[in-house]
Amino acid sequence: MTIGIDDTIVALATPPGTGALGIVRVSGQHAHSICKTSIRETNRFETSSSKEIHLYRWLDCTSQEIIDEITAIKYAAPYSYTGEDMVEIICHGGTVIVERILESLLHSGARYAGKGEFTRRALLNGKTNLIKAESINQMIHSTTLIQQRNTIQSYLGGYTTLIKLWEYRIKEILVDIETEIEFGEDKDTAFPEQGKIIEKATSLKEDLLGELQKRQRIKEVEQGITIAIIGPVNAGKSSLFNLIMGFERAMVDSIGGTTRDFISEHKKIGSMQVKFIDTAGLINNAVGLEKQGVDKSREFIRECNMLVWVTPANERTAKEEETIIPNEHQMIIGIINKSDLSDGIHKKNMFEKIGIPYITMSAHNSGDKEAVETFIINEIQKKYDAQAYDCVIANKRQEQILECMCRELEAIERRVVGEEDIVAYHCRTILEKIEEFVGKKTPDDVLNTIFDEFCIGK
Amino acid sequence: MTIGIDDTIVALATPPGTGALGIVRVSGQHAHSICKTSIRETNRFETSSSKEIHLYRWLDCTSQEIIDEITAIKYAAPYSYTGEDMVEIICHGGTVIVERILESLLHSGARYAGKGEFTRRALLNGKTNLIKAESINQMIHSTTLIQQRNTIQSYLGGYTTLIKLWEYRIKEILVDIETEIEFGEDKDTAFPEQGKIIEKATSLKEDLLGELQKRQRIKEVEQGITIAIIGPVNAGKSSLFNLIMGFERAMVDSIGGTTRDFISEHKKIGSMQVKFIDTAGLINNAVGLEKQGVDKSREFIRECNMLVWVTPANERTAKEEETIIPNEHQMIIGIINKSDLSDGIHKKNMFEKIGIPYITMSAHNSGDKEAVETFIINEIQKKYDAQAYDCVIANKRQEQILECMCRELEAIERRVVGEEDIVAYHCRTILEKIEEFVGKKTPDDVLNTIFDEFCIGK
Repeated sequence: MTIGIDDTIVALATPPGTGALGIVRVSGQHAHSICKTSIRETNRFETSSSKEIHLYRWLDCTSQEIIDEITAIKYAAPYSYTGEDMVEIICHGGTVIVERILESLLHSGARYAGKGEFTRRALLNGKTNLIKAESINQMIHSTTLIQQRNTIQSYLGGYTTLIKLWEYRIKEILVDIETEIEFGEDKDTAFPEQGKIIEKATSLKEDLLGELQKRQRIKEVEQGITIAIIGPVNAGKSSLFNLIMGFERAMVDSIGGTTRDFISEHKKIGSMQVKFIDTAGLINNAVGLEKQGVDKSREFIRECNMLVWVTPANERTAKEEETIIPNEHQMIIGIINKSDLSDGIHKKNMFEKIGIPYITMSAHNSGDKEAVETFIINEIQKKYDAQAYDCVIANKRQEQILECMCRELEAIERRVVGEEDIVAYHCRTILEKIEEFVGKKTPDDVLNTIFDEFCIGK
Repeated sequence: MTIGIDDTIVALATPPGTGALGIVRVSGQHAHSICKTSIRETNRFETSSSKEIHLYRWLDCTSQEIIDEITAIKYAAPYSYTGEDMVEIICHGGTVIVERILESLLHSGARYAGKGEFTRRALLNGKTNLIKAESINQMIHSTTLIQQRNTIQSYLGGYTTLIKLWEYRIKEILVDIETEIEFGEDKDTAFPEQGKIIEKATSLKEDLLGELQKRQRIKEVEQGITIAIIGPVNAGKSSLFNLIMGFERAMVDSIGGTTRDFISEHKKIGSMQVKFIDTAGLINNAVGLEKQGVDKSREFIRECNMLVWVTPANERTAKEEETIIPNEHQMIIGIINKSDLSDGIHKKNMFEKIGIPYITMSAHNSGDKEAVETFIINEIQKKYDAQAYDCVIANKRQEQILECMCRELEAIERRVVGEEDIVAYHCRTILEKIEEFVGKKTPDDVLNTIFDEFCIGK
């Protein structure tokens, strides 16, 4: 993207389509004068204070025909989103109106904004930093609560202190190294600081790896999480699956062992996209086709994010059920099904003994659907929400930089006495990476890639 | 719809979806206090003047967690859109953010707005009238320039004077009638005012019929207009059709007479939906299948909104072409095709003689496409634009009231001497209809029907 910094740019900032209102943004040194040519009440517009909203009639600047009655807010540089003179035009939200307003602005000398160009100007004018800029875009595109929570933290600069601390910790190592280089030879022991330096490097590396792990969990949520429904044959797994889906997706048969292959469907639960897998029952002595199904169950169980262990209230716990399932996954929730047939007290005792959260229900009772959904949401949130939304990494670019920093720290760990210069070199590389992370030094092509993902109008 | 006037209502006012910004509207007596519970900078919000925009952090009012950084404008009753206390929250335009902001407002005591409820409140509070309210909705949903131009006129109250004039003209007739009833018997001639009264009624009726006709033209545009391409065989009608469509829709053959049946396609030209019909050539002595095609041509020609008369530059004008086509339609534009083969000077002379606007082109030259489109748009706009966008009727409801008024005026025309009371009755009915037209008296069920077509947030 070639940026004409002197140009005045315009774009629709609200989603395209039909709505009560729409916002057209204008930014650049001629923003005020360009808008003035289309405003009937020029005097009111000229004399209005910055950040005051007023009612105007918007004109076709050639024919002077009234296009719409709008409200507009004038912003004077540097006190605006971009740091330039700006106008926000709130018009009626029809496609023809927006088109005509944009056309009149283009006619008066503005040009269409490129992707993310408003934010890019804000960045150039020091009104935002790269982390904040990236988080704006991610916040807008968040489809789950967890993502949105995480990005608002970045946006608000929640990690500034943490990142500064990383910088401080590396600088500390550098000081140690320099002390060593200067005074090492005079000392009795060779490189006595080495242990201390490695310890510091390892400690920082572990913190960074922790962030990368948190990022991994958020990515799981972004991509949608997978929940496998498992349990003994004829526990009602498919009935539960159908209950959650809200329609008869899986074949249900009272004989049990009906589900041989896998059935999976996506379902939005709360603010999360969840893929549910209805697995074959766990039958240890299965053969042929059935065995294939059971083997597949095992495979999926290892890869999914959560297991829902369905067990019938009215039947004894199968030995293999009790011994196998709890060891298959770290994240298991229990469902005691067929509560219409028994109180399932021995199943409750079992879950409580193993320490698995559970709910009692009947898959035939559609009234239980909401309780089950709420239960699952709460359990997912317990896993993801509390921990995940304070992750400093918000995207691939940041993730790659952190991975790079970890590799540099590992390189430091491998250094021995006499390699102090190399350690110093790695430290300086890490400091550069931190600057790249926060966007202090960002080459134009990196910026182009970043803003290319933005929507127009941001 | 049950309206709880005391409720504070909220809605997303911008189109749903992902964009840089979104606007959430809050209106009602508790609008300010409800917003305050979610604003971190309560002091700034409380002390800010009406119609000033400020930056705030929006909180989840239960957890006090920051949801977004927003700007908000406070409006104090009655100086707002609805005439109530209002807040406009400009937030980042992501679906999760908007959902969370709406949720926090509902949690603090607001409720979701019904369709058009903001405008309905504006109407109840005397901030708008029914004509204006209806035009807002129509303006938002306009898909063509002509519609939008017409509705902005209504919105701006462009027809207020005209409607008052109708009222005045009916009251004038009433005065005449009353004079007649009071003094008629004392006079020599019976009902001498009758001629004058009928003349006035006819004159008003004709004006109203004129408005209904204009409305008809706008409806044509709303529904999309139809243009038939006609001309002698092998004039290149299908080639022109394909050129406009941008792909090989119609079969083209150099032998001519290729198009026997009808081919039609919709195409957006400028801001208008246009249905183009590629007709069979006009062959007077056609028989069998060909005759059927020609007969169909004739039928369509009568019903469509415009004819495009295509004639080849390099061939003599067929006698039937020159004598038949000009009489088939009032709205004809000419296209002299095959300009690569001849300058077509005799065809130019013909069009100029008959007074038909024309353009010279070659359908094989894709570079001529834009010129042809522009030519067609300009000719359509000449027909529709200038006259049509000052139509007082903007929708079905208003159209029906005007039709009703016309019937009442016709009834007056049929009255004879001695039926002065009946004339007076019809006049009073018309006055009631005018009140209904502008919404001075509108029953709740009519309002319900009107606002049911609105979008939420308006």
